[in-house]
Amino acid sequence: MNAPVLQPAELPTAVTGALKALLGPRLSMGLSEREQHGRGESYHLGLPPQAVCHARTTDEVAAIVRLCASHRIPIIPFGAGTSLEGHVGAPYGGVCIDLSGMNRIIAVRPDDLDATIEAGVTRQQLNAFLRDQGLFFPVDPGAECTIGGMAATRASGTNAVRYGTMRENVISVTAVMADGTIIRSASRARKSSTGYDLTRLLVGSEGTLGIITELTIRLYGIPEAVSAATCTFPDVASAVATVVSAIQYGIPVARAEFLDGRTMLAINRYFKVAFPETATLFFEFHGTKAGVEEQAQQMQEIAAEFGGTGFQWAAGQEELNRLWHVRHNVHYAIQAMRPGARVWGTDVCVPISQLTELMRTTHADTQGASFFVTMVGHVGDGNFHVGLIINPADPAEMAEATAINDRLVARAIALDGTASGEHGIGSGKRKFMTLEHGAGIGVMRAVKQALDPLGILNPGKVLPDP
Amino acid sequence: MNAPVLQPAELPTAVTGALKALLGPRLSMGLSEREQHGRGESYHLGLPPQAVCHARTTDEVAAIVRLCASHRIPIIPFGAGTSLEGHVGAPYGGVCIDLSGMNRIIAVRPDDLDATIEAGVTRQQLNAFLRDQGLFFPVDPGAECTIGGMAATRASGTNAVRYGTMRENVISVTAVMADGTIIRSASRARKSSTGYDLTRLLVGSEGTLGIITELTIRLYGIPEAVSAATCTFPDVASAVATVVSAIQYGIPVARAEFLDGRTMLAINRYFKVAFPETATLFFEFHGTKAGVEEQAQQMQEIAAEFGGTGFQWAAGQEELNRLWHVRHNVHYAIQAMRPGARVWGTDVCVPISQLTELMRTTHADTQGASFFVTMVGHVGDGNFHVGLIINPADPAEMAEATAINDRLVARAIALDGTASGEHGIGSGKRKFMTLEHGAGIGVMRAVKQALDPLGILNPGKVLPDP
Repeated sequence: MNAPVLQPAELPTAVTGALKALLGPRLSMGLSEREQHGRGESYHLGLPPQAVCHARTTDEVAAIVRLCASHRIPIIPFGAGTSLEGHVGAPYGGVCIDLSGMNRIIAVRPDDLDATIEAGVTRQQLNAFLRDQGLFFPVDPGAECTIGGMAATRASGTNAVRYGTMRENVISVTAVMADGTIIRSASRARKSSTGYDLTRLLVGSEGTLGIITELTIRLYGIPEAVSAATCTFPDVASAVATVVSAIQYGIPVARAEFLDGRTMLAINRYFKVAFPETATLFFEFHGTKAGVEEQAQQMQEIAAEFGGTGFQWAAGQEELNRLWHVRHNVHYAIQAMRPGARVWGTDVCVPISQLTELMRTTHADTQGASFFVTMVGHVGDGNFHVGLIINPADPAEMAEATAINDRLVARAIALDGTASGEHGIGSGKRKFMTLEHGAGIGVMRAVKQALDPLGILNPGKVLPDP
Repeated sequence: MNAPVLQPAELPTAVTGALKALLGPRLSMGLSEREQHGRGESYHLGLPPQAVCHARTTDEVAAIVRLCASHRIPIIPFGAGTSLEGHVGAPYGGVCIDLSGMNRIIAVRPDDLDATIEAGVTRQQLNAFLRDQGLFFPVDPGAECTIGGMAATRASGTNAVRYGTMRENVISVTAVMADGTIIRSASRARKSSTGYDLTRLLVGSEGTLGIITELTIRLYGIPEAVSAATCTFPDVASAVATVVSAIQYGIPVARAEFLDGRTMLAINRYFKVAFPETATLFFEFHGTKAGVEEQAQQMQEIAAEFGGTGFQWAAGQEELNRLWHVRHNVHYAIQAMRPGARVWGTDVCVPISQLTELMRTTHADTQGASFFVTMVGHVGDGNFHVGLIINPADPAEMAEATAINDRLVARAIALDGTASGEHGIGSGKRKFMTLEHGAGIGVMRAVKQALDPLGILNPGKVLPDP
């Protein structure tokens, strides 16, 4: 098996010299930049790489990979640093390749409803660019993340119930493999049955099988009508049951976000707003004017059945934007409840028939926690996040949070669910991989060994130690 | 590299004895059954396996695989034998595992809109079973194929423009790997970001990486309203442009099938009907009553812009069923135009902006052919089939057909398309793999070598010889 690559005390001067010759000032060895590149946005402690390379082209990435391969030096791809499970840490040292400078929008093809972009393009950048053409890219994890990073972690977010995740919305990627070979995973055809699905193999592989440098992604027409609403519920179960019922009924809801009372409290404080501080759903509907009205009407009826009250419709685009701005920044709102703390966001996902029960038991399980605990969810997908607002430097709090998450993941997997709906594995969830995948881990290991025989691509991530 | 496995003159008696002990009368060595299992429905000549095993359980499949692995004997999985590119031939001999007897519907979960089935369940069987529950499985290649076979070839068909292909509709598979290990590729969660996407790796691998024995698939509610229509056009280009325009406009058409004038002629003769013998579109719309009416109205307007006339709406379920029965049996209708002939169905797929031009040049390229040539297409996906009605035993016709297909595939790949939208590679399209995938072939070979080091899983398929 490809063993973790041991960290030398320092990078060989042959390597730093060659990198400097290649990149000039775009090679950085300074501590603050290395520290900034060694951690994401979560509770994980930083593990800085030994050097940061700001790449500008796929060929440059390939040259860096070939150089590192020849010295067996770990390579950690980096986008915007918004990941949540320690994906960008360098536990074995090595070279970080920062792709954020590869932010060209190469082609937008309205006739084919697709675009080709470099990996460092952010979704905000792309959507701002597309707006005038009446198009948008729907996958929306909230953060100001790069689309390459979203592909690498198989991200999703609030729109997935309607538009799918990165799995469904990446048509093709250009990737640099562990030996420096550049491949393109597929053509631009919308469907193909010519061989192994290299696109889906790379999407979600978190930089451990190859480094995604360009992507062709699906676009959608901005809907004729968009309408959004909030609605409050007496408890978690009734709010979740409303969404589950709507999905089963076939309402093509575009977004259906659950936020618990504590999250609403945090939002009110952080944004200086005054939502009711109880279980709440944020909805969005996309379609024709008639279609959106029909969907909204059906949804109100279902919500009423489960005790939902106070339907508030966003009046106009500005109010709608404000609503989703609030939802997208929940992470920061709940973090602000405790100055200096970090949010440990859990991420289980289960079949939706199991969701109400799992959220109820989880709510009960966290009532006695010694820290502030919130719950939000992309409930239309069966996916929710418990926010544990902790001090990662406090061993007792870390132990308590770890135990909560362990119990939650075990319950989710027992319900035929998954340890991570959209955040990925990184270093943080490796311990759950065998429980979830059983013998499938052997297949994953064989693929990793075949495609990265030296074990240099983002070591210490995704797969548990053998 | 895993070299093709050489065919021994006969299977070792240790193997046939062990198979007989395991399967009793479900092991067949008779020539007629072997011949029947050595060919699909296309022009490919049959290549019979040396034995046919009728498996009933995943454990039985695993036992057969372990036995074959220990003697390095090729294994060819078989569903309904409807494949079109020589997928089931045994060029190196070996053992066919017929999964059609594994046809249990294990669970249907209306609350989760999913079902778990054995690989031998056919889509007709499943949909008949689901109808009373108001559910259906949309992927529809037309033939009476098994859902396991559809997954193995990443099939799609008439509904893909709305519901996606097997890539989007398989949630998880149980598979027997080359050493007999049984894995389950994923949980039932609708989304997950826990490691490599083994589901998508196995879907489309044509039995060369593992043998799919069970699947969990997505279901959909039968739409409140379904409406279907035919419409005729002056030429190929105007019909195709109508669909491309509708897709770009965002009309969620459920089916948009093109049939050329010759196909309509063949249909009229075979089904004793009287369609106009000109370029025709078959449409279907799914939704609420209001939604379907809105879609149909928009589509009529677009069709009229491109010279479409004679919109005929199917009146009632029976007429609608008859329409799609006709479309599903086009293969047999065109085959019947020349008794004793076989249909070579090409299968390129391109970005839809390129489709009109490619279909026009292809139409021109085949006008002088010495045999009957038809053209049908899932044009909403950019995918179409040229039907070459040939005598595969005539070397001149085979050479002519080969040249037509070679030119067509080269044009499609040059337009950033694919050699196969939905039929797969089998043995027939291996020669195009390097042209389409370039350096990606090396990645595919590495994955194959890692997961099937002995090269026993369906040798001679998918990947070109090294």
